[in-house]
Amino acid sequence: MNVQSEAKAPVSGRLGADLLLDSLYEGGARICFANPGTTELGLVSALARDGRLRCVLSLFEGVCTGAADGYARVSGQVPLTLLHLGPGFANGIANLHNARRAGSRIINLIGDHATWHLAYDAPLTSDIVSLAQPVSRQVISLAKPDAIADDVRQAFAATNLAEGGAATLIFPTDVVDAPAPDNGNTVGFVPYQLTSVGDDRIKSAVAALSEPGETIVLLGGSALTEAGIRAGAALAAALGGRLLMEPYPGIVTLGGDLPKVERQAYFPDDVIAQMGDARVVLAGARMPISYFGYEGWSSQLVPDERLVRLAAPGEDAVAALVALASQVGGEPAPAPAPMEAVCSPEADAALTPVSVVEELLVQLPQDAVISLEGSTLGGPWLRNAHRAKRHRVMTNTGGAIGQGLPCAVGAALAQPDARIVALQSDGSAQYTLQSLWTMAREGLKVTIIIAANHRYAILQTELNRAEVPLDDKIVADLTKLDSPKVDWVALAKGYGVEAIRATTNGELSAALRHGLTLDGPLLIQAELP
Amino acid sequence: MNVQSEAKAPVSGRLGADLLLDSLYEGGARICFANPGTTELGLVSALARDGRLRCVLSLFEGVCTGAADGYARVSGQVPLTLLHLGPGFANGIANLHNARRAGSRIINLIGDHATWHLAYDAPLTSDIVSLAQPVSRQVISLAKPDAIADDVRQAFAATNLAEGGAATLIFPTDVVDAPAPDNGNTVGFVPYQLTSVGDDRIKSAVAALSEPGETIVLLGGSALTEAGIRAGAALAAALGGRLLMEPYPGIVTLGGDLPKVERQAYFPDDVIAQMGDARVVLAGARMPISYFGYEGWSSQLVPDERLVRLAAPGEDAVAALVALASQVGGEPAPAPAPMEAVCSPEADAALTPVSVVEELLVQLPQDAVISLEGSTLGGPWLRNAHRAKRHRVMTNTGGAIGQGLPCAVGAALAQPDARIVALQSDGSAQYTLQSLWTMAREGLKVTIIIAANHRYAILQTELNRAEVPLDDKIVADLTKLDSPKVDWVALAKGYGVEAIRATTNGELSAALRHGLTLDGPLLIQAELP
Repeated sequence: MNVQSEAKAPVSGRLGADLLLDSLYEGGARICFANPGTTELGLVSALARDGRLRCVLSLFEGVCTGAADGYARVSGQVPLTLLHLGPGFANGIANLHNARRAGSRIINLIGDHATWHLAYDAPLTSDIVSLAQPVSRQVISLAKPDAIADDVRQAFAATNLAEGGAATLIFPTDVVDAPAPDNGNTVGFVPYQLTSVGDDRIKSAVAALSEPGETIVLLGGSALTEAGIRAGAALAAALGGRLLMEPYPGIVTLGGDLPKVERQAYFPDDVIAQMGDARVVLAGARMPISYFGYEGWSSQLVPDERLVRLAAPGEDAVAALVALASQVGGEPAPAPAPMEAVCSPEADAALTPVSVVEELLVQLPQDAVISLEGSTLGGPWLRNAHRAKRHRVMTNTGGAIGQGLPCAVGAALAQPDARIVALQSDGSAQYTLQSLWTMAREGLKVTIIIAANHRYAILQTELNRAEVPLDDKIVADLTKLDSPKVDWVALAKGYGVEAIRATTNGELSAALRHGLTLDGPLLIQAELP
Repeated sequence: MNVQSEAKAPVSGRLGADLLLDSLYEGGARICFANPGTTELGLVSALARDGRLRCVLSLFEGVCTGAADGYARVSGQVPLTLLHLGPGFANGIANLHNARRAGSRIINLIGDHATWHLAYDAPLTSDIVSLAQPVSRQVISLAKPDAIADDVRQAFAATNLAEGGAATLIFPTDVVDAPAPDNGNTVGFVPYQLTSVGDDRIKSAVAALSEPGETIVLLGGSALTEAGIRAGAALAAALGGRLLMEPYPGIVTLGGDLPKVERQAYFPDDVIAQMGDARVVLAGARMPISYFGYEGWSSQLVPDERLVRLAAPGEDAVAALVALASQVGGEPAPAPAPMEAVCSPEADAALTPVSVVEELLVQLPQDAVISLEGSTLGGPWLRNAHRAKRHRVMTNTGGAIGQGLPCAVGAALAQPDARIVALQSDGSAQYTLQSLWTMAREGLKVTIIIAANHRYAILQTELNRAEVPLDDKIVADLTKLDSPKVDWVALAKGYGVEAIRATTNGELSAALRHGLTLDGPLLIQAELP
């Protein structure tokens, strides 16, 4: 065995890492959310040589993947993540799970040991493919420099599958450190396209809707744009029906003169009551199911015979809605909804979730993007969003908590002119609080409202429904967060983010006015019951 | 389709969840590091009914798994983790990767949707098995209440395999919510046993060592106890050889009158220089390999013909060392090593990594446990630990960063009378800083020294070796953490942990004196160059 061989002469010229970056750039990538380690340093050097990709460092991988998700949702472009081996990638899985549910197009870059080193099972060796598959449309291990452009093309193709989602490229250090061909195949930019809905689907829907009965138009995915909501409203109006949206949209446009869109309820009994006996037109939305499986309640909440499957997620729901509305006699452009009046709640009163939302309805600037996580503020906001100026809302699509703050980071980088507002429950904010550092570092215009009720409210709601006493010591130990109460103002300060604690409506109003004009982040700890 | 069925009458009597806890308790589990969600509430209720297991809540799953690892290393017992579905589990993977490398025996409990709900691909559905396999000796999905005791027995058996490691039990809500047999099979407590090394192995070693040549005794795993180190020292003395330990021990006993144990170096060139032409007796240690694969350097750093394979990890290395030492004429009990004098560094001088270590050498109390993460303080400590009072050190076994603080949590719960000291680099501390909250909540006697150099020092070291300029903007952006500098005192305050910033040796000395007498946690931000 040759224990020590001569170190190779430094390679001049183009390496695999350079070809990888060229190919990604050509495919459309412009930003890289990174938390690199030793195996990624070859790519870090190449990023420095290249200089075209914006590199955003985070202190934790879940921030990188959640930021990539937010960036993809707001921009529709394909961001990169750069993560360190299996364990580093694993820290980013939760937010990639949400990204998969949102159909966000992302390419993950994961460094791995040199191929010849893997057999030695070094400390950081792990089965990266097994970890990556559950959150990737495709996992590709780069095997040789000559094939890198092909591999990248395949990754973009995977993210362009109908429902979007991430593709994962694993790059062994020896492959990206090796000389690469100067004339690597070109990748070519392939824009994302929704799949068209055929005429037969429209005809079937027309036939189904010609039967007597109530109708609900359930919007989801690509239908949740201004055009989709107007087309859906036209269809609902033509049928005398109601307009609903899926419970957890990736991104939805709301407010201004757009019609109100009712949100699908959460608990199965509430969904069943909400749906009544109506037939449900699925326009970009999946059929209504129960979020969790509850004994005594079916998973599927609307039977097959009442479902009108117009457009699946990943299909062009807007075009399908327009076509269907025109055939059932819908007005192409229904009258704009008049704005309801909004006014600030009483200044001296203690904050409640509803009063926080009322104040934000007053102050939210035009074209803001809201990153919403948790039901404490999320529920009341989505019941009232039609009363705000035109804005977009991102919600937690996959239920993996710790999405809200990173998604706000990504949104701010995707749309630097917009104001980003994070409406964030305190429990879920803890999973990726390191986002605050990246907000400060990048000077992002994010205004965060932490709903500080110091408990896992959703778990208490579920336990109440199951008639489990909340004051049992062990139950309380596992659901209450009040010993000690987290001081979010101190945490924000720790990361260089200005912060204010608010207990009354007046305090919140002043803090929000300050935050919404700052050229950087502000965190407001809203103390709630 | 029956959309709404009658809710079942509440079940009285014993449920699957109760049988699960009974079986786990019988097998030896006494503590549960938990971050539950809705699918785990059946188990939370059962934990409340049972009342025998200590439940420790953390704000992030990586804290749960790292704390379980620390608990297992210090106690040798089998702790539980309770985590929420695939994404919640994913957040705990990084520290389970380290636990696998440490051979820590852990049982993970992961809730899943009801079996009949999985086909509907609800938002939180994911391939938990694919996520869990890379960090589990065995993954078992509970299929029916009658088999739960068998499943638990199998999980304990998997953790008892020679090298230890975690077993993972996935429990669908309908299985643990269903009535369970009162007379479930009993699990029985099976203590962990190392595999004995046969006489033939001792004989081979004697033969190999009878040849002329230098000898290194390389200790690892089970050999890193007081008995193992003394036996290793006796063997080395008899052969006129040197005593080394593996570079990243799970837990090692050091200091007091124990002989100094040199640590295996990190970079391949340093290891090769350190090993020279010696033959290397592997006693509980794996053979020396390179941590990463570097072009021009072999992975294996000592050729096969110079390896004397006495005891593999998971084998009884102490007994093998004692037997071998006696056959080559080693003294059974070499003279205790005399303690070297230690004294505080100059009070007014600015802190350096070495001065931090010197002060801790003076103050570290007897039988403390050090949780060590990062090379800034870890390197100098392990070079000098023989000069401290008797203590134990846990290191980062798998290279997944974010281990140090959670391991300190687990150590403190495993040994409440001991003082726990976390020597922690600032970059890696960020991955699981939520540990601070659990330390405050549980009043743990943990004294943390954060090595605040505001950069990824290890990456800068690697880049320097590769001759990549550190001041390139993108390189600096991805390796420097000084914009903004994290204020650890503020972060600690946010979690209810007292904290002090130290810039001189005198300040550190005073802070440490205060921290080591507190009946709870203290964080010291040590500002380093």
